[in-house]
Order: sequence, then C-alpha cells, then structure tokens
Amino acid sequence: MLTKNQIKLIQSLARKKVRDEESLFVAEGIKTIRDILPYFDAQFVVCTEEYVHELKPLTKSEIVVATKQEIEKASLLQASQGAIAVLRKSTKPFDVSELKGKLTVALDTVQDPGNLGTIIRLCDWFGVENVICSRDTADVWNPKVVQATMGAVARVNVHYVDLPQVLSELKNYMPVYGTFLEGKTIYDMELSHEGVVVMGNEGNGISDAVKQCVSHKLFIPNFPLGRTTSESLNVSTATAITLSEFRRR
Amino acid sequence: MLTKNQIKLIQSLARKKVRDEESLFVAEGIKTIRDILPYFDAQFVVCTEEYVHELKPLTKSEIVVATKQEIEKASLLQASQGAIAVLRKSTKPFDVSELKGKLTVALDTVQDPGNLGTIIRLCDWFGVENVICSRDTADVWNPKVVQATMGAVARVNVHYVDLPQVLSELKNYMPVYGTFLEGKTIYDMELSHEGVVVMGNEGNGISDAVKQCVSHKLFIPNFPLGRTTSESLNVSTATAITLSEFRRR
Repeated sequence: MLTKNQIKLIQSLARKKVRDEESLFVAEGIKTIRDILPYFDAQFVVCTEEYVHELKPLTKSEIVVATKQEIEKASLLQASQGAIAVLRKSTKPFDVSELKGKLTVALDTVQDPGNLGTIIRLCDWFGVENVICSRDTADVWNPKVVQATMGAVARVNVHYVDLPQVLSELKNYMPVYGTFLEGKTIYDMELSHEGVVVMGNEGNGISDAVKQCVSHKLFIPNFPLGRTTSESLNVSTATAITLSEFRRR
Repeated sequence: MLTKNQIKLIQSLARKKVRDEESLFVAEGIKTIRDILPYFDAQFVVCTEEYVHELKPLTKSEIVVATKQEIEKASLLQASQGAIAVLRKSTKPFDVSELKGKLTVALDTVQDPGNLGTIIRLCDWFGVENVICSRDTADVWNPKVVQATMGAVARVNVHYVDLPQVLSELKNYMPVYGTFLEGKTIYDMELSHEGVVVMGNEGNGISDAVKQCVSHKLFIPNFPLGRTTSESLNVSTATAITLSEFRRR
C-alpha cells in the first residue's frame, strides 16, 4: 500500500522546482520503467501485483504493491499506466570538449514536452549522445517528457546551458547547422559527422542570438517545391528528417 | 456574447458520435481558424474583440464576440486559444481510382490525435493528397487533431475505409510499402512516385491483415546500425523520414 507521504512525494514531483530541489523525478508506465530502472537509483517503485515479479530483479529499492486505483490516484499523467517509479536524476556534468568528433542536437526553446521526448527518442535512434538545450527548453525530467522518450532518457545526455554562449564557442571548431525557410536544400548539402544541429521553438523558430551562431542554413523542401502548404513542419518531424539525412550518408 | 446553446453545441462536439450526426466539427485557435476558415462553411465563429476585424473577411457566417473567459469556458482544449469556430465537415467521397499515379499514406489504427494531426501536416508538406485510414484510426475531426494539423486538414483528404480490403485491391496495380524491423534499408531502396505507404499503430505496428497487403518492406536504420537503442521510432517521425525519402529522389 502506498503511504500518504509517498503519494505526496509523487505529486510534488510534477513541479520542476521540487524535482530540482530533491534531484528526483517520476517515471510512469510498466514499459518505460522496465527500460530505465536499471540505469537509475530508485527511491521506490509502485506497481500492481502482476508486475512485482518482473520489476524485482531490476532494482535494489523497495517495491510497493498497490491497487490500480491507488496508482491512478497518485499518477501525474492523464492515463495512468499501472506503475510509478520515483528515481534519482543522473546528469553528467557538461563538458564542451565531449562534443568533439560527434553530432550533437541543440534545442532553442523547444517547449512542448511531447516534442522534447520525441526528439530525445530520435537522438537515441540516430546515435546522438548529447542534446544541449537553452534554459527555457522543457525539462527533460517532466513526467510527460520521460514517457515520450520511451526509455531513451536513460541513454541520451541532456544538458541545459547558455545556448548562444556555448554555440558561439562551438562554431569556432565545428559546423553549426540550423533549418530556415531561406536555407539550402538539405538533400544537396554536404553534411559532416561532427557538428551541431540546432532546432528552434515551436512557434518562433530559432532566436536571433542563436541564429548568429549558425554557420550552415538548411531547408527541408516541400513537394512539389514551392507549392503553397503549411508554413513549416512540426519541430520533432523536422528533427527526424534532418537526423536521417545526416546519418544516411 | 455566447449563448447557452452555442456553448452546449461546442462542448457536445467533443464527442465523435455528435460530430458524425451533426456533420460539424470544432477548430480552435486564431492561427488555425485563419488558415482553414476559407475552406469550410462555418456555423458560427467566436472570438475576442481584437480578432473580429481579421476574421470578418474570411467568412459569411456570424461572428460572435466574447470575452477570453467565455471562450475559455467553452473550449475543448486544455489551453484555450482565443477563438473557436464551429464548421461543417467536408469530405470528398472516396474513390480508389483517385489514387492512381499518386503517393498515398495509409494509417492502420493510429490512435493518438497528436500523431494523426502531425502526419496530416506532413502529408500537406510533402504533397500527399490522400490519407486512407482504418476505421479505428483517430478521428480527423477531433479538435486535437484539427489543431495539430496547423491548417493542413483543409488541404489533405482523409478517408476512413476497410483498410485490408482497399489495400488488397490497390496492391494489384501499385506498390504498397510498409516499415518493419525486418525490412530493407529505406536509403537503398528504389521508391516509386505511385504507391501507398502504410504506417502502423503506436504500440503494435502494422496488423496481420494489413501486413499481407504490403509488397515492399522498408526499414529506417538506426545509427550506428545494430546498436541497442529504443525499439522503434514514434509513428509521426517514422512517417516524416519515409515521406522525405520518397520525395528527395
């Protein structure tokens, strides 16, 4: 049975301020928990009877057995998923020299948790180890983000930095790519193995300060080229196409 | 001022059953409404004072001026967007011969409204005129789908059909592509201008009945190939990469 204090702790972790103070976060759903439990220290895990056997070998922490109704009551998501884990955040300290020789994604104020989670999942798929985010990008430890990563949050390092400052340093020794309506067709561009791909905010794109650090402007052409269509692609689908272009070569 | 009956109508249109019976749907947000209002008959449009001038030339229907609070109260979305339109659905009758010579997307039980909306937006970007959906795919007239299409719902035809039946007919005269973990690398495949691209359910992928209609199995390789990563990509990002591959050639 879940104690009152455990429920209180789970619910307080809906707030970023508390996640930062306690250095804890919440993962929900048996699939996500199964994937990430081996990578994080757990404070405790709550699940229904049927999952105890499966989760036991993955953690040294306490496993609390609760009813579906109890878990629903404690859940931070609209559709509760039968299991909740309270885990200790683990963030490697950021070291800009770690990015050398690698492809990195930079996010400039990506605000939708679903988009951030999907982009982290894409980075995992395409072997991008590091994501650097402006400080006003959504929090990777938000339960909706954790869920949307489908476990990739355990394998991709997400850093919050002063983005214009870090990029203005990086652009001295590697290409910095960004997508713009006035960019060059991505299909025809030479794309390097080392570099940064900047993706911008859902409504406003890449900010002026970050734009100044972009050395290569890319464009994902619509089809037939020039036809009147939507003004832009969703940021996670644009990231998908861009990373696929970098990796297929 | 919004009447009680207008509020009632808006809220009843959260339900698919009512949308089907009344042949109406709700679009929210000034940006979406601005984009799609010229393409649909409006029953009425509600907005705050500041938008009346802008919306007036786009419709012959009544424009109701309401306060932000009234609109929030009537809104079907979590974050209300300052304007709501009640519009008449318009669906071209489905004619399988219309798909000849074109690239079409088929959705097999795509259930998340955000995914469906994002895929319709992608189809608009990449010049895919028709999307054919299994009957248990999310409803295109769901307000969350309409919003996620960013106006593309006005330009892409979405049809609900007996998917295995339609595909088993189509495969006689055009290639039917689907993404599978055991497929061939998409980057190396010959991809035609005429054909159907099938995308499957978020959790279960493509169903057995539909699988039997797929003539070409594709795979989006992860990087480096074979590395242990997430099991799969999100359906909308997989669609993005697939359509980009078809259109770049």
